[in-house]
Formats: sequence, C-alpha cells, structure tokens
Amino acid sequence: MIECVPNFSEGRDLSRVDAIETAISNVAGALVLNRTSDPDHNRSVITFAGQREPVIEAAVRAAAKAAELIDLNTSRGIHPRVGALDVLPFVPLGNSSMKDCIEIAHAAGRRIWHELGIPIYFYEAAALRPGRARLEDVRRGQFEDLREAAPIDPARAPDLGGPALHPTAGAIIAGARKLLVAFNINLKTSDLGIAKAIAKSIRASSGGFAAVKSLGLPLASRGMVQVSMNLTDFEQTPVHVVYREVERLAGVYGVEIAGSELIGLMPRKAIEMAFADSLKLAHFGAQSVLENQIDMLMPK
Amino acid sequence: MIECVPNFSEGRDLSRVDAIETAISNVAGALVLNRTSDPDHNRSVITFAGQREPVIEAAVRAAAKAAELIDLNTSRGIHPRVGALDVLPFVPLGNSSMKDCIEIAHAAGRRIWHELGIPIYFYEAAALRPGRARLEDVRRGQFEDLREAAPIDPARAPDLGGPALHPTAGAIIAGARKLLVAFNINLKTSDLGIAKAIAKSIRASSGGFAAVKSLGLPLASRGMVQVSMNLTDFEQTPVHVVYREVERLAGVYGVEIAGSELIGLMPRKAIEMAFADSLKLAHFGAQSVLENQIDMLMPK
Repeated sequence: MIECVPNFSEGRDLSRVDAIETAISNVAGALVLNRTSDPDHNRSVITFAGQREPVIEAAVRAAAKAAELIDLNTSRGIHPRVGALDVLPFVPLGNSSMKDCIEIAHAAGRRIWHELGIPIYFYEAAALRPGRARLEDVRRGQFEDLREAAPIDPARAPDLGGPALHPTAGAIIAGARKLLVAFNINLKTSDLGIAKAIAKSIRASSGGFAAVKSLGLPLASRGMVQVSMNLTDFEQTPVHVVYREVERLAGVYGVEIAGSELIGLMPRKAIEMAFADSLKLAHFGAQSVLENQIDMLMPK
Repeated sequence: MIECVPNFSEGRDLSRVDAIETAISNVAGALVLNRTSDPDHNRSVITFAGQREPVIEAAVRAAAKAAELIDLNTSRGIHPRVGALDVLPFVPLGNSSMKDCIEIAHAAGRRIWHELGIPIYFYEAAALRPGRARLEDVRRGQFEDLREAAPIDPARAPDLGGPALHPTAGAIIAGARKLLVAFNINLKTSDLGIAKAIAKSIRASSGGFAAVKSLGLPLASRGMVQVSMNLTDFEQTPVHVVYREVERLAGVYGVEIAGSELIGLMPRKAIEMAFADSLKLAHFGAQSVLENQIDMLMPK
C-alpha cells in the first residue's frame, strides 16, 4: 500500500477541491483518507492510498483536474507554491518500500509530463540531481520566479519536460518520502515577527530541531499569526516536543497559543509517543493499547 | 467480543502467574492481550478477550489454577483482596453489550461455585443486591474480615455459594463493567501521607473527580509512594486530566512525579483525547489518525 498526499494551490473555492477529490475517488482502488483546506494558505491537501496502479492513475487525474481549475497567475495564498498541483509525495505504508515509492513518483511524473504537458521536478528520495532533495530549494522564489528562471538557467530547469513551466499550472514537484506530520500552531498575536522568530528558532536549517521545517505566516482571516511546520521524521523529533518548545518561546514573548491544526493525518505512533511522554508512562508503546493488541492478535 | 480482566493475588512468584496465563491461553479462542504484575501490590492482571464460550471457559480455568496455587492465608500485598482470583470483570467490546456481559458474569460465577466451590459476589452492572455495585464496598475488610463476617452476617454473605469463604482461595467478585483505565502515579517521596492526601483529593467518593477511585499506597521495594487509580469512565474524566491534577497537588507538597504505570491496556480513545488536549488540536479525533482511516476505509 502506498500513501499519496498531493497539495493543491486552492483552499478558498471548495467546489474546485470537491472536483479534484472526485477525480481521485473515481479511480477504483484509490481511497481518500483525508482532506484539509485552508483559506489563508489558499491550499488543500488530500490524503489518499491504494496499490501502485490506482495511486498513479489517481495522481495523474488529480494533476489534470487541478490544471483545468487552478491558474497560478491569478491564484495566490500565503503558502509558497510552483504548481496548481504543487507537491506530489508518495509514502510507503505497510509492506511497501521507499524504492517502490521512488519508482511510482518517477512513473507518475512521466505520465503527467507526457499526457498533460506539465513539467516535473523530483525531490526527496526521488531526486535525480544533487541540490533537489529539499523541497524548499526546488520551490525557491515560487511560481513567479521559477517560470523566469527555468527556461534560461539549467540549474533550475525541470527534471522532466519544459524547460518552460506550464503557463497556468506551473510545475509539479513529485517525490518519495517517509510519513510526515504537517501541523500549524496559531498564536494569539498579529505580530508576524514573533511567528517568524519562533519558526527560525525551531527549524533544522537554523540550528533548531532535526527534521523540522517551519515558517512564520500571517493568518489574515483570523487576525493571528502562525508557526507552520513540517516534521519530516516525527520519531526523531516528536510532535509534542516541538509543540512545547513553541509554547515556551511564545511565552517568552508573552504570547499564548490559540490552538494548533493538523494538515492531513497524524500517524498513530506520534500520538502514542506524546501520551507516554506527557504522562511519564514507563514501558508504554503500541503493545500497551487495547485496540492495537486486538488488531494484532485476533484472527480476522 | 468480550474482554475479561481477572486480577490475581500474586505478583511476586511469576511462575505461578505463568501457569495461570497458560491455563487461559490453552483455551482455543481466548486470546491473552496483556499481563501486568506488581511485587508491592502482590497482584497480577491478565487481559484476555474472545467470544462468550471461550471467555467463560478461560475464566473458570483461571479461577481453578489460581485456587490451586495461591493461599490467601500466607499471601499478602499492599493491594486489598478477598480472593486468589480476586476480581473478575467482563467488558463489552465491539458489538457486544453490557447485558451480554452481565449474563456471562453470572454464568461464569455459577460454574465457578459449582465446579470449584469458591463463592461468588456480583458487582457493578452484574450486582444482584443493592450496596454491591461498588467493588470497594464488597471487598471491605479484605479476606481476613470477610471470612469472619460472611458466614454470620447475611448482609455480607456471598451471592452464590458459601456462606463460608473458600479456606485458601477466598471468594471471587465477578461483574460486568465498561472499559476501565487502571494506572498508578509514583511520587518521589516515601511520605505515605502525601499519597493518601492526593488520593483523597481526586477520588469521587471524597468529592474529587467523577468516576475516579484512588488509594495512596507505599511502594516498599522502590522507596516511594503511589497514587493508585481506577478511572471507571475515562470519557467523563480523562486520564491526562487526572494526571495533571496529581502533578499539581504533588507540586504543592514540593514532590515530583517519578513516573506512572499502566495496569493492563489503555483504550485508544483515551490516548487520542490526551493528544488533542495537550496540543490544543482543533477538530482532532479518531478520524484524524492515519491508521484509523486506513482500518475504517480500506477493504480487508
């Protein structure tokens, strides 16, 4: 089983997101597990899963529907993006491997370029060039900069197709990666500087926590600011550890946390790790949970 | 499916607990999900599950093996007890009902009395008399007092059999109840008065949290004291809420929490509730967890 978590550059007109979700769920064997939209980010994340072939088919249809409905020339949110379907990660679940997901990312990318004419960058474990593993490096300058650079700068040209971006749908950054936790903490302040300072303190690239990416963003519709995070290895740096540090740093500024939001789904292990830690529970793990034991031991 | 969580008055000689566990797991269709032993409590809890008939059969065999191996005249721990197999609760899981569990408790009790000669008290939802719903009322004075009272005081006589207790195995308190969370918080002090005061503050019977039972106990083997708890309705009073109050109260005495311990298994929902609360996660529930969505939506 493979998980696919495409991000779309539309989080306001939900009828468009409905249409994209329908394009995915119409593929037999592709099961939509979650959908999260945000109007300030102007972005939606759909989580679906299935076997290799339906997952590839659904990814291609999602890219086609996004390209039909989203025009990056007129669509903008606070979240950086280069494509109508912006990021297309494949994640191994159960018995599937990262190698499977790399092959699937490459196969989906080839179909999207050949069938839809949208150029592809490969990132994370599916990257084909040095310097393209990190999403933020590939996406630097967003659609507006990349469409200028890609045709003339070989270092920024797509891995497949182009070199010009698609005029309205941009490019797709496809890849293979481990499970990721995307979550945002909203602060009871409109001071964007505080969110940016906290984001800088916690992110790996500034010497913060390993496997943490973060941005400080304004939430215009809510009059607050947000520390927006991707935890790319929640076993190395757990969700609750990052939460507590953001809470501590916000306290230094005299600011409270208004709440946090999950984008997509939370892996069960991240929840169990937080529980064990927050209750100082000795010897607690997956085997300590009633339903886990029933699922594991009971004959089906 | 029915869960059964017998408590045995032996937590030191683990070869005896092994023998009891084997008696249960030898019943086809009875699956042992967890086993927890504590030397200070001198008590072990085995969690198993299955359909009605194997669960009753395993309960009877467990009672027989416990009666064979445990003599209450020579066995004592800090945890109160009236039987070698002390408490025998049946819990509805999945599609089974409390009514099913009441019938099962009564059926298991009848077999134990008729086949093993151990008298039975029925408690919680399976109670047959007013004043016997609460375990602590039935168990008042433990084995040593109850064996004197039962033969002469009709108010304390068993519901089935007796009225004299079994000379070495005492009596069994069988019942039907909802899922319960049993957990203990250990304090970095040897002052038993602090554990007793905290236990009194939090328990329902002293005006504390609803659906919380608690005792302050000494942990001789570890030089600490313990707040030992049963949460009989973790949706009404969540585990993490009780933990935080114990932490706060301990802080008032200048005492730290050394750690906590789970007895048996934790229901998944209790963990998800704690996670949502501790991270102030909006709209978080079972549907926010990757594996839950896969289990629910994926064809088997």
